[in-house]
Amino acid sequence: MDTQAVAAEFAALCKAGKFEEAGERFWAEDVVSIEPMQGEMAELRGKAAVRGKGEWWYANHVIHGTETHGPYVNGNQFALRFHIDVTQKASGQRMQMEEVALYTVRDGKVAEERFLVRMG
Amino acid sequence: MDTQAVAAEFAALCKAGKFEEAGERFWAEDVVSIEPMQGEMAELRGKAAVRGKGEWWYANHVIHGTETHGPYVNGNQFALRFHIDVTQKASGQRMQMEEVALYTVRDGKVAEERFLVRMG
Repeated sequence: MDTQAVAAEFAALCKAGKFEEAGERFWAEDVVSIEPMQGEMAELRGKAAVRGKGEWWYANHVIHGTETHGPYVNGNQFALRFHIDVTQKASGQRMQMEEVALYTVRDGKVAEERFLVRMG
Repeated sequence: MDTQAVAAEFAALCKAGKFEEAGERFWAEDVVSIEPMQGEMAELRGKAAVRGKGEWWYANHVIHGTETHGPYVNGNQFALRFHIDVTQKASGQRMQMEEVALYTVRDGKVAEERFLVRMG
């Protein structure tokens, strides 16, 4: 699959709320996931580690709703934009998150995902 | 200036419609600009070449309106999202373009700009 085909199918799964299925289907075995934060989750390597981050996320947050926009494409990269209406269970704080996710495709798989978070 | 400060000021200039000023102020001398297309404008190097692309763009298009959203930040990169209501002079075709622009910052300057265009 070329980047446009991966982008279209990945985006369609996210728009249907199937984020975990998108990852399972398209993450490369050695996928790298880069978050805009310090600490142990800033950069994870490998499908198992990235899957674990997702499990941690779902266990610790209540998701009220998500919106996925895009994809946007250039060469072997595509971007999606996410709106997430979420409550952090520990604090009870409800947040409206907005992110741009940048995906790099290699051999029809997502070799890297990198999340940029809306400032201000 | 760190990436967040560059992102905030660059975004503010774009939101004020001052795209050329944003480039003049923040492009590195050896800035690389990558467009989602084939051909001679696919990858340009150097402030003069990138400035020339902008001049070509403004000479050949009528801009009816622009919207800038963001910035979104991770590490030394930030993204903006553009909506552009534009007519191509040659064809007379009016288009609604939507792009994600990804900027890589080095020493307080934009070392690379990469545009991803909305599919479909």
